[in-house]
Amino acid sequence: MRTSRAVLASVRTIRSLVESPRLGEDATVNGWVRSVRRMKKVAFADIGDGTSADTLAVVLTPEQSKQLSTGACVQLSGKLSESPGNQKFELQVAEPVPGKPDPVKVLGPADQSYPLQKKFHTAEYLRTIPSFRWKTLGNSSVLRYRSYAQSRIARYFESAGFTQVSSPIITSSDCEGAGEVFTINSGEPDKNQKQPYFFGDKPAYLSVSSQLHLEVYAAALSRVWNMAPAFRAEKSDTNRHLSEFWMVEAELAFTESLKDVMTVAEQMIRAAVPDSAMAIDIIQSNKQSSSTKQETLKQRWQMLSQPKPWARVTYTEAVELLRKEFPSLKWGDSLSSEQEKHLAAHIIQGPVFVTDYPMHQKPFYMKKNAVSDETKATVACFDLLVPEMGELIGGSLREDDHQTLLSAMNDNNMNPDDLEWYLDLRKYGSFPHGGYGMGFERLVCFVCGVENIREAIGFPRWAGSCVC
Amino acid sequence: MRTSRAVLASVRTIRSLVESPRLGEDATVNGWVRSVRRMKKVAFADIGDGTSADTLAVVLTPEQSKQLSTGACVQLSGKLSESPGNQKFELQVAEPVPGKPDPVKVLGPADQSYPLQKKFHTAEYLRTIPSFRWKTLGNSSVLRYRSYAQSRIARYFESAGFTQVSSPIITSSDCEGAGEVFTINSGEPDKNQKQPYFFGDKPAYLSVSSQLHLEVYAAALSRVWNMAPAFRAEKSDTNRHLSEFWMVEAELAFTESLKDVMTVAEQMIRAAVPDSAMAIDIIQSNKQSSSTKQETLKQRWQMLSQPKPWARVTYTEAVELLRKEFPSLKWGDSLSSEQEKHLAAHIIQGPVFVTDYPMHQKPFYMKKNAVSDETKATVACFDLLVPEMGELIGGSLREDDHQTLLSAMNDNNMNPDDLEWYLDLRKYGSFPHGGYGMGFERLVCFVCGVENIREAIGFPRWAGSCVC
Repeated sequence: MRTSRAVLASVRTIRSLVESPRLGEDATVNGWVRSVRRMKKVAFADIGDGTSADTLAVVLTPEQSKQLSTGACVQLSGKLSESPGNQKFELQVAEPVPGKPDPVKVLGPADQSYPLQKKFHTAEYLRTIPSFRWKTLGNSSVLRYRSYAQSRIARYFESAGFTQVSSPIITSSDCEGAGEVFTINSGEPDKNQKQPYFFGDKPAYLSVSSQLHLEVYAAALSRVWNMAPAFRAEKSDTNRHLSEFWMVEAELAFTESLKDVMTVAEQMIRAAVPDSAMAIDIIQSNKQSSSTKQETLKQRWQMLSQPKPWARVTYTEAVELLRKEFPSLKWGDSLSSEQEKHLAAHIIQGPVFVTDYPMHQKPFYMKKNAVSDETKATVACFDLLVPEMGELIGGSLREDDHQTLLSAMNDNNMNPDDLEWYLDLRKYGSFPHGGYGMGFERLVCFVCGVENIREAIGFPRWAGSCVC
Repeated sequence: MRTSRAVLASVRTIRSLVESPRLGEDATVNGWVRSVRRMKKVAFADIGDGTSADTLAVVLTPEQSKQLSTGACVQLSGKLSESPGNQKFELQVAEPVPGKPDPVKVLGPADQSYPLQKKFHTAEYLRTIPSFRWKTLGNSSVLRYRSYAQSRIARYFESAGFTQVSSPIITSSDCEGAGEVFTINSGEPDKNQKQPYFFGDKPAYLSVSSQLHLEVYAAALSRVWNMAPAFRAEKSDTNRHLSEFWMVEAELAFTESLKDVMTVAEQMIRAAVPDSAMAIDIIQSNKQSSSTKQETLKQRWQMLSQPKPWARVTYTEAVELLRKEFPSLKWGDSLSSEQEKHLAAHIIQGPVFVTDYPMHQKPFYMKKNAVSDETKATVACFDLLVPEMGELIGGSLREDDHQTLLSAMNDNNMNPDDLEWYLDLRKYGSFPHGGYGMGFERLVCFVCGVENIREAIGFPRWAGSCVC
């Protein structure tokens, strides 16, 4: 690999230049012009290529700078030199020499109609220019964090003995109610086809969660995880929901304790807290934000990486704790988003696992806790709540007794035939297990301080909107 | 993380036991019974948990062994001891002590109707039992290799300065012809809805490739890659095609040379060649296969990791080379799968990049080569061919000139309005770039010697089949 990697190294990224500048050397740099400032005798430009939050400061003659405009793609050659200004170093563009390649080469011009002129743009405006919205400093940092978090989460799971699997996207299991799922077909949607369904005698859906399939994988491999797209056909128009989003899900065999599942969830998120380089990237990308926002972000990261284990309270305790602020709240009520945020931000002041919710609030597959009072039946589950965001993760132990699961399906008016393959896991070699799912974009919002989840994913989809 | 990881370590996987057995220690092991052999005075069982191709040999009394049956999930406690047999060590199950937990605990029984009794099962049969098919040694090894390859590919890209992105699955761009794409809608497929489309005034499709969206990411981040599901609504019933598969795609800004793109592709695959531990896992999982198959696999891995760079020939050269065997082949013809395999297996005898195909064979976005004879127009593209498999990767430089791309779309009878966002990338700050896509399951088939691609993915989907 050494030889080949050298080929790629012939084009240096701005990130590699910033990390090891080698002052005094000749360098050729590719990137897009972020800004140009022209004075009488000298001109300056900032060049970025998105590999880093840093831009490269470039010094050239006013004549040379005439070719540069905001948004243009350029290739510049010159010498890396110490900088007298704020930057640590700069590229001093060479003078043109007749008969040699021009040290200023415009690869792709951008005229004044370029939609990303140097000024503040609202998130709503940027969404209307999908080809360019990720070129802003703030947005590109979110994408770099996504990549960082994916990498760290993958490494965490690998170190903890988990196998990464790929759950299906197209599924015949419509386990959460037909109203919220997308159906798929081949050909034009309104055309009447002789064979109504591409996959046989049943409709097919887009997966709303990988969990049920992950349990099959866990039966084969013990510890599995998955990062895959999930889909909800909900028409809700909020800043927390998308029709298409990515979920990180894990399933752990041979545990009879919810604590193990929470431990994996906590370790996973701790692994995705920005390290110092990533932290600088995010802070730098928020340099136009208020210092309050920057402080908030730093506090969030500290909160996640606090030395002591994250708080764990039962639902019953949470209701007690919340009653001071919400006196009408009583056992059995669902916690509202406002209550969840209040619990994490003001009572616990940090991330908190709320466990053992009332059974009637939760899906059929969760394992029932032993209780003396059946009117207070609970299941072995948890929600992870964080300040200002609310729910980040939901998880549970899974019911592993065939008869109990069958009864739960009947109680939920489900047809067991539809999930025979899932029930089969309890018929032969059933195993105690549990797992959880995290909406990846929610983590991105929380860590990067993104207000609307539509800015946490490359090409957001919601009811009425599928641009590109 | 140290504290919490210890919690998980309290349940030791068979892989961790095999890697560091600590002989003489007491151990509790969870897993599924692969087989039981009962003699007069002693009984043996093999226990596996899917974390490794290894099983744990267990010694117990004939009385204790009565509880064990193939497929049952058990928890066994005893002492790890040196083994007199083939295994390096074994677990000697403790004798039961009244008042203490039984050293043999059946977590989930399996009676004789368990569909995976110890004998040979065909792949077709295993597909009919989706809940259990991944529990066989051979199949579970394929899943472990998938995870290994994903991890190594991710690490390679990270080391080469690529940002991992997530392209959209739902798209409004139907760029490869409506016949082959899946359409999506909400609600039941045949229901007439007032608003016909969930996402607005246009139908939405499942992505057939991330490439076009990856180019948007590359315009923001320079070097990007993606591993995402892709979908084809083709009715072809072959051992090489799936309706849902995973693609690894990469896009590289600031290259005007196809060589750079091929270099990245080659480095990526080299990174995914099994290391010694993974190689042992795959070979061990093929222990019931012929020794010929085991040799074939080893040869494939050696072929991929050969010290010299992989062969590169142009399409024109390939046609010349193939004419000896296929005399009727002439310039301009598509290479058949048979011809592709022949070229790689018999002429080159290894992986080979075939470059610069005739323009008329390839999609509109590929960059045209400069040629003197327009009847021999070619594009800067490549297919990577490997013996016995044929095409593994396709890639190209992308046309980055706005007018040329527009003409190419018109020549292909495409409506430029449908891809305005894609054309826009060439309007402002256009950049030379190229990239490629690899069907991940094809790599899995080649490396693991899987005959049918349906055995290379957890839950295969094809026309007429969507089990689970």
